[in-house]
Amino acid sequence: MPAETREESWERLEALLAEGGTDGLRAYLGALPPGEVARALSRMAGEDRDRLLALLPPPQAAELLGALPPAQAAELLGAVPPDLAAAVLGCLPSDGRADLLGELDAGRAEAILAHLAPDVAAGVRRLAAYPPDTAGGLMSTEYLAYPVTVRLEDIIADLRGHAEQYSRYQVQYVYVTTPGDTLAGVLRLRDLLLSPPEAPVASVMVADPLRLRADAPLDEVARFFDRHPFFGAPVTDREGRLLGVVFRADAEEAVGERAERRFLLASGVLGGEEFRSMPWRLRQRRRLAWLGVSLALNLVAAGVVGLYQDTLASVIALAVFLPVISGMGGNAGNQALAVSVRELALGLIRPDEFRWVLVKEAGVGAANGLLLGAALGGLALAWSGNPYLGLIVGAAMALSSLVAVCLGGTLPLALTRLGLDPAIAAGPILTTLTDACGFFFALALASGLLRQLVLS
Amino acid sequence: MPAETREESWERLEALLAEGGTDGLRAYLGALPPGEVARALSRMAGEDRDRLLALLPPPQAAELLGALPPAQAAELLGAVPPDLAAAVLGCLPSDGRADLLGELDAGRAEAILAHLAPDVAAGVRRLAAYPPDTAGGLMSTEYLAYPVTVRLEDIIADLRGHAEQYSRYQVQYVYVTTPGDTLAGVLRLRDLLLSPPEAPVASVMVADPLRLRADAPLDEVARFFDRHPFFGAPVTDREGRLLGVVFRADAEEAVGERAERRFLLASGVLGGEEFRSMPWRLRQRRRLAWLGVSLALNLVAAGVVGLYQDTLASVIALAVFLPVISGMGGNAGNQALAVSVRELALGLIRPDEFRWVLVKEAGVGAANGLLLGAALGGLALAWSGNPYLGLIVGAAMALSSLVAVCLGGTLPLALTRLGLDPAIAAGPILTTLTDACGFFFALALASGLLRQLVLS
Repeated sequence: MPAETREESWERLEALLAEGGTDGLRAYLGALPPGEVARALSRMAGEDRDRLLALLPPPQAAELLGALPPAQAAELLGAVPPDLAAAVLGCLPSDGRADLLGELDAGRAEAILAHLAPDVAAGVRRLAAYPPDTAGGLMSTEYLAYPVTVRLEDIIADLRGHAEQYSRYQVQYVYVTTPGDTLAGVLRLRDLLLSPPEAPVASVMVADPLRLRADAPLDEVARFFDRHPFFGAPVTDREGRLLGVVFRADAEEAVGERAERRFLLASGVLGGEEFRSMPWRLRQRRRLAWLGVSLALNLVAAGVVGLYQDTLASVIALAVFLPVISGMGGNAGNQALAVSVRELALGLIRPDEFRWVLVKEAGVGAANGLLLGAALGGLALAWSGNPYLGLIVGAAMALSSLVAVCLGGTLPLALTRLGLDPAIAAGPILTTLTDACGFFFALALASGLLRQLVLS
Repeated sequence: MPAETREESWERLEALLAEGGTDGLRAYLGALPPGEVARALSRMAGEDRDRLLALLPPPQAAELLGALPPAQAAELLGAVPPDLAAAVLGCLPSDGRADLLGELDAGRAEAILAHLAPDVAAGVRRLAAYPPDTAGGLMSTEYLAYPVTVRLEDIIADLRGHAEQYSRYQVQYVYVTTPGDTLAGVLRLRDLLLSPPEAPVASVMVADPLRLRADAPLDEVARFFDRHPFFGAPVTDREGRLLGVVFRADAEEAVGERAERRFLLASGVLGGEEFRSMPWRLRQRRRLAWLGVSLALNLVAAGVVGLYQDTLASVIALAVFLPVISGMGGNAGNQALAVSVRELALGLIRPDEFRWVLVKEAGVGAANGLLLGAALGGLALAWSGNPYLGLIVGAAMALSSLVAVCLGGTLPLALTRLGLDPAIAAGPILTTLTDACGFFFALALASGLLRQLVLS
């Protein structure tokens, strides 16, 4: 296998580290394809990785962090001395700084903040005060704003005078404010280029532009960019004061990260990303925490079977169908749940529309429940020759499918109203409920028809 | 309940439609918050929705489509006459046109293409030839390119002369080409603004800029933008000819959409988004198709229970623990699966690294399996007083947890090598395997220890 005879990128990096000197390291890192950088860093020994970050000049270390998934970048940043972490953070854009610090524990973040320039640290604290999935939490504070009284040539002169400093800004728009920092207009760079330099900015800007309030939730930000073809949107407070800029790409990225969190959540990976390069104990404990909850919930559902042990002993054939009935209920319920999660995210339903969801789910759930029940009941009859078993299995399948889609469809609404992520229901909560329903319907029906079942 | 007494937005829209005339409609739509537009359209009767789109001037209809989730927008576009659909599509950017047409069936898409201007239709066909999740499939073809021989003032003059036409372009960068459309450089709009107009473009542009090949997969595009702070990247063919531009926001959006598809896939919603406003029959059939597959797979696992019916009849208490063992195996396996899906997406593992995944999973799976096995086995002992039952339940739990994480961790790698989305394993495929393992371990052990179990 060639993968074993070839030197892997992290082996080369460790060899270069052992040699000392940064030139070879920098050249090798620069030549690695972007994807390989993350893979190599994730495989290096922890202390080598920290040493590597310490050896690089802060701007290149910052670029390296940018190539990593946020969870991995934060892990790395938390492992190097606070003064070095502060130097690297200083080379990142403001929203990146706040996001990375937000992933660290509070003590560690404070230690790093203490090494940042006071105005930078204050900026980070200001951004960190906004919840992450809001316009305020997504915004950058590197933007250009000029008083409404200037002329275009004044802006161009300022841009020329600070070309170096502004080169790190994403200047698609220039903002125009009245005294008190109130947002008055927005000027596109293109209009700045194409209009006569002596024109007053007020005559070229788009006055009273669309803006986002700092407390606008991510869904509202995403819909804003769906509807308007802008690269960025100004963010203001309640009084209309300009606070920062949300870029379309950052909003899209936040939507993607939320969808990825939900995929992990639905798969039982809680507490953030897990990478197999993380310490063994951390991975094992995090997974076990969720499996423990899941075990407790599974036992609740199993308790229903325990209550009907005698019935089950009399009709052992039912034991073959119990996991099918409960499993299918879980599957049907998860479909309904995913549709609700998506419809909530897209704003197609409001969290109070229980009735609409129930009406729409009941029809589909009843139809599919009847079809699946007929199929499974027919199979049970054919296999056992016992019509009562067929009836019980079929009816339990139909009923549990109906109940499961109603539960799956409405649970995300209830969770949203409680201020929770609706996707957390996708794991053990829904499955426990659908398992318990499936077991109960099958065993209660069997218990009621026990005489006929055993005699036939 | 105020929601019932208040007029809902779609009721108002339907009333305005009934009145006829477009002014009231346009004013009402313009005043609706962005999120409410999608909700209102999703609740209107199908024919009213189509009539609404037909009544609006194409640019406003295009803006309306932009406010809708892609699946809903395509549904709407497929329902209006092809000439109207073509007029609306003509107002969308090139990548949006190709994406929407890609969601329609081929006959319908052809009918619409026939009504587009020939050069526009040719452009759509060219874009549609690239697979969706590649740089080519993501790129826009609205970009500005100038020969390497021009001066900055020539570019500025061209921009001024075509201000109206270019206003729909996202001009952050201007591209510079040599004869044969070969990409030679990129010029930032800011540099165009800040450099002397008489300078030759070759002296100001970034020569031989970073670019993406048209066949670069989405993960590579995403990592490119993670590593480089650009708003967009030029896309070239193998020979270095400029084909289009991928914008960062479009790459982020595609990553988000893929994560959302995976969440739906993992939840058993196949065939694209489902909205409850879609026709009842379509929703019911799509869900049933997947539930049918799931039922067949569930029966395979249940077959294992069927093989051991006699054993189970002798030790009915085992029936209480069977669903717990199989369910917990599924949970443990899904955690490992989600970690593999994420690591593959982030480039932290390659699809051929089975051994690395197995080594990393076996440790965690064995440790958690032993702990969960001890807990569940202890419970079985305490509840039944039968040490053999405790032993069997505990051992089956431990073994099935170990096997489940190894299966869950490696299945995504195998699927990726087969060219499939690794997330499709998250549904019934993995669960069937883990169910069958759990049932088998518990019942085979019980069968081997049957004498001790029944006698004790």
